[in-house]
Amino acid sequence: MHVRGDRQGIISLAAADAFLLQAALMGCIAFETHPSRYRHWKLDVQGEIATLGMQVAEDGGLVPGYALKLNSYDLGVDIELADAIQRLRFSHPAVRALVITSLRDRVFSAGANIFMLGQSSHAFKVNFCKFTNETRLYLEEMSRESRIATLCALNGTASGGGYELALACDEIVLVDDGAAAVSLPEVALLGVLPGTGGLTRVVDKRRVRRDRADFFSTTAEGVRGQRAAEWSLVDEVVPRSRFQVRVRERAEALARSSDRPAGATGIELPPLRRREKEDGVEYGHVALAIDRARRVATLTVRAPREQQPTSPEELLRAGAEAWAIAAWRELDDAVVHLRLNEPESGLVLLRTEGDAETVLAVDRGLVEHRAHWLVREILLLQRRVLKRIDLTARSLYALVVPGSAFAGSLFELVLAADRAYMLADEAGANAVALSPLNHGLLPMSSGLSRLEARFFGQGERVATLLAHAGPFGAAEALAAGLVTFAPDELDWDEEIRLAVEERAAMNPDALTGMEASLRFVGPETLETKIFGRLSAWQNWIFIRPNATGEKGALTVYGRAGQRPEFDWRRT
Amino acid sequence: MHVRGDRQGIISLAAADAFLLQAALMGCIAFETHPSRYRHWKLDVQGEIATLGMQVAEDGGLVPGYALKLNSYDLGVDIELADAIQRLRFSHPAVRALVITSLRDRVFSAGANIFMLGQSSHAFKVNFCKFTNETRLYLEEMSRESRIATLCALNGTASGGGYELALACDEIVLVDDGAAAVSLPEVALLGVLPGTGGLTRVVDKRRVRRDRADFFSTTAEGVRGQRAAEWSLVDEVVPRSRFQVRVRERAEALARSSDRPAGATGIELPPLRRREKEDGVEYGHVALAIDRARRVATLTVRAPREQQPTSPEELLRAGAEAWAIAAWRELDDAVVHLRLNEPESGLVLLRTEGDAETVLAVDRGLVEHRAHWLVREILLLQRRVLKRIDLTARSLYALVVPGSAFAGSLFELVLAADRAYMLADEAGANAVALSPLNHGLLPMSSGLSRLEARFFGQGERVATLLAHAGPFGAAEALAAGLVTFAPDELDWDEEIRLAVEERAAMNPDALTGMEASLRFVGPETLETKIFGRLSAWQNWIFIRPNATGEKGALTVYGRAGQRPEFDWRRT
Repeated sequence: MHVRGDRQGIISLAAADAFLLQAALMGCIAFETHPSRYRHWKLDVQGEIATLGMQVAEDGGLVPGYALKLNSYDLGVDIELADAIQRLRFSHPAVRALVITSLRDRVFSAGANIFMLGQSSHAFKVNFCKFTNETRLYLEEMSRESRIATLCALNGTASGGGYELALACDEIVLVDDGAAAVSLPEVALLGVLPGTGGLTRVVDKRRVRRDRADFFSTTAEGVRGQRAAEWSLVDEVVPRSRFQVRVRERAEALARSSDRPAGATGIELPPLRRREKEDGVEYGHVALAIDRARRVATLTVRAPREQQPTSPEELLRAGAEAWAIAAWRELDDAVVHLRLNEPESGLVLLRTEGDAETVLAVDRGLVEHRAHWLVREILLLQRRVLKRIDLTARSLYALVVPGSAFAGSLFELVLAADRAYMLADEAGANAVALSPLNHGLLPMSSGLSRLEARFFGQGERVATLLAHAGPFGAAEALAAGLVTFAPDELDWDEEIRLAVEERAAMNPDALTGMEASLRFVGPETLETKIFGRLSAWQNWIFIRPNATGEKGALTVYGRAGQRPEFDWRRT
Repeated sequence: MHVRGDRQGIISLAAADAFLLQAALMGCIAFETHPSRYRHWKLDVQGEIATLGMQVAEDGGLVPGYALKLNSYDLGVDIELADAIQRLRFSHPAVRALVITSLRDRVFSAGANIFMLGQSSHAFKVNFCKFTNETRLYLEEMSRESRIATLCALNGTASGGGYELALACDEIVLVDDGAAAVSLPEVALLGVLPGTGGLTRVVDKRRVRRDRADFFSTTAEGVRGQRAAEWSLVDEVVPRSRFQVRVRERAEALARSSDRPAGATGIELPPLRRREKEDGVEYGHVALAIDRARRVATLTVRAPREQQPTSPEELLRAGAEAWAIAAWRELDDAVVHLRLNEPESGLVLLRTEGDAETVLAVDRGLVEHRAHWLVREILLLQRRVLKRIDLTARSLYALVVPGSAFAGSLFELVLAADRAYMLADEAGANAVALSPLNHGLLPMSSGLSRLEARFFGQGERVATLLAHAGPFGAAEALAAGLVTFAPDELDWDEEIRLAVEERAAMNPDALTGMEASLRFVGPETLETKIFGRLSAWQNWIFIRPNATGEKGALTVYGRAGQRPEFDWRRT
């Protein structure tokens, strides 16, 4: 079943059933927004310190059926948060610290809205959690790499996803008023896990002792006051009378350690050039084409067609129109659109078009000037987009044909793909190329570069490849292990057709699990633990009758007089 | 529902329904066996080299309903394999290399029996996979730590779990006869994952390039001949005419690098002292008591009551009667019994009894003589049992009361527990103690000691604790962070009652996911990746309708004229 709403999200009233309604509205979730249009957050920039104030509009849910009380959130709230983080990085280079707080009295956030979760499909729940996890990780990356440190000022209780948002900040200050607590009530109240990295961050990041974490994570009311600080659940508890002053002090201290440039001017991030069509989305440099009958999407990225800025000054002048920003913002949008709005396109064919030399020239400029704040942000943007692709639960085949531009930063798409097919053309024109950007500036979540992951444990081989001058023809690329198969012109069509058909016919769940295992070879990080271990468990729990069955804990939550019933068999 | 068979596995014929039948038979799965009783393997020891030949009895399934054709296996086959590995270590100290092969012509193994999986409950599938994963990891640990290297001689096709068994060996030799292949057909044929670490081992251990691994893991017929060697799926392919000679050569080469003692005599592993009762199992040093109404198990380990052997010579004389072996074999049996035969006991109370000093004396002897082959095996046995506890999906509370013996190796039970309650008795007699065994000789799957995991990133604190002389009273233990709570005599009963009742009332699935996240803080290893990432995904896939629904791939496999039907939404 595939139901699509129109572009404004207005759907036929005949689709009254909640599932249809949601599926219809899911067809047009938009990921673009702007601070002037935020309904749930207020972004306030005062010199070095920015404040993001949460004040979720109760009636501002993305779909009907639930009220966003007590600063609980849905995907729409998180889309605004992700937007604010992105804009702080690009548009506010003078900001050196961010305070996240609530604009409501005595409540920080009640976390993900339970009734929203209860009415959502499994696929939506999983993708909602993935998006919010990415946003939390962006906060951590922003602190570590962009040097905008983060402080969460808990002026009231933070529950579940609300506390998980705090956990993603560098520091947490909790008001000590005898009432405000931090809690992860999911296990005890809802029969599911905290879905946004909470368990992992409590023990791995904040190093809360595991037995205390066990007590905390099974105690619905949470922990408050001195015990919260003693257990390292927060960094400090402060009486209400001194709260604002103390938050300010700590934010200023955080700001002092930043290397962000005083007095620099940022760049605006204008709306994307984006045109939604019946069978896909057309952007300035990117195209997403959906073949619904075959359940195959084709994602094409075009190399720059015009002379690109290379110096920081030129990049500042060009702003978000620069290919290095525009194409990657578009790619990011296409990927999240695919995830949420095109759930049945299980296989994505990755293509590029244009002049590889122009990509390599852009790469060279970025590498040369990578110490400049804006260039740093551009590289981080590309890194995030590529990570988002690694973490997308779709099969990825890269198709390298003559006229493509799989070079440097765009060659990362080949390295991100589950397989790469390269046409061994008679003319010998088909080629791929590496650039210094493949040398670790665009790492995966595991911390490895995609080349390192591909040749895991073979450091010398990676070094030899990076030292290779010039492009690789099909035979060379195959011999070097840069592509999987290199069929000739006679075989190409049939081989691709078969590979596509076979893949699109397999159990999509098994493919998701398989890809998550094969893509992330080698070391695990907090990030991969969250997406691998924690999310996999959460997905399992979400689909079990004990959570989402008729008598499941998530299903009956909030229903008067109903209590969950469990199958007690442990697995 | 809880159906129990009698002790011989003979059940009432009224329980004809397959699920009841299985549940009933599950009530008496026995984990003890002996080479003289093997139905599926032949263990042949010739000097330095042992050979395990697989010849699965088609009619030897653990429960009715499937035939174990083509060396496919069920839990019963794996119980024998685990037994053989254990006996090689203890009873055959002169063995320096193990060859695993098939005694059938032209087939190595078809992997886990699909019809067995198809008729099994979710809880059984998950626990079956966990047990087989542990057995595979024992092979790897046996090679690394006991220095019995392993060679898998694939004299025919190895599919799915059959190939996964090969992957757990140090080397794989495949016959090159134009037909024999290695394959992981699960994704393509069954819509599930290879469940025994296959994906992780292919990329992380054997370092097969991820795009080749992708092709391999989605190609039902697998890969054979030179390509299998070129892709590193096997180490060598050898024509049938030279196969036996080459296998022998390689096994001899592996044996040469071992440090196992020539001419040493091993110890026998006699049947456990084990008495099954209606409400549990009573062993010589261990007792498992099941309170089915409350769904709570109590697992008690008693300290030695008699003078224990300490020197290697004494240990050799005492053999498996020594507490350091007997108690831990019993504990291991109790844990797997709990997992498979008592699925509803969601909370396990860990208790000890006896004189802590006798435990510490045993520990001292083991640490002093740890270079001796038998002492090494004893320490490895204890390590495996403790890992098995970490990996058991039950909530664990340690209860430390006067008269208990939570010291040294037995204190690891406190460290393995999700929480520890210690009675702050007025007399001040209640105590716990550390020994050098807590110093890293009994590591978790993550490679950390349980103390290191508890105080993650606080190396100095761990060092201070290990330097502490003498026992810790309740107040001291609480201050040191060795226990979670230390209620006094007034509060004890009520606090324990509440903690037990609350835990036993929560969604068991959510607890499983939570515990798997909180227990394994810090680094990930191949082992934790298999149990965390891979198993979590597999559990999810197993419960999804696409695999086990009415039209799921696993359900309809082998049914003439039926094809799976999938919900195509990707998550």
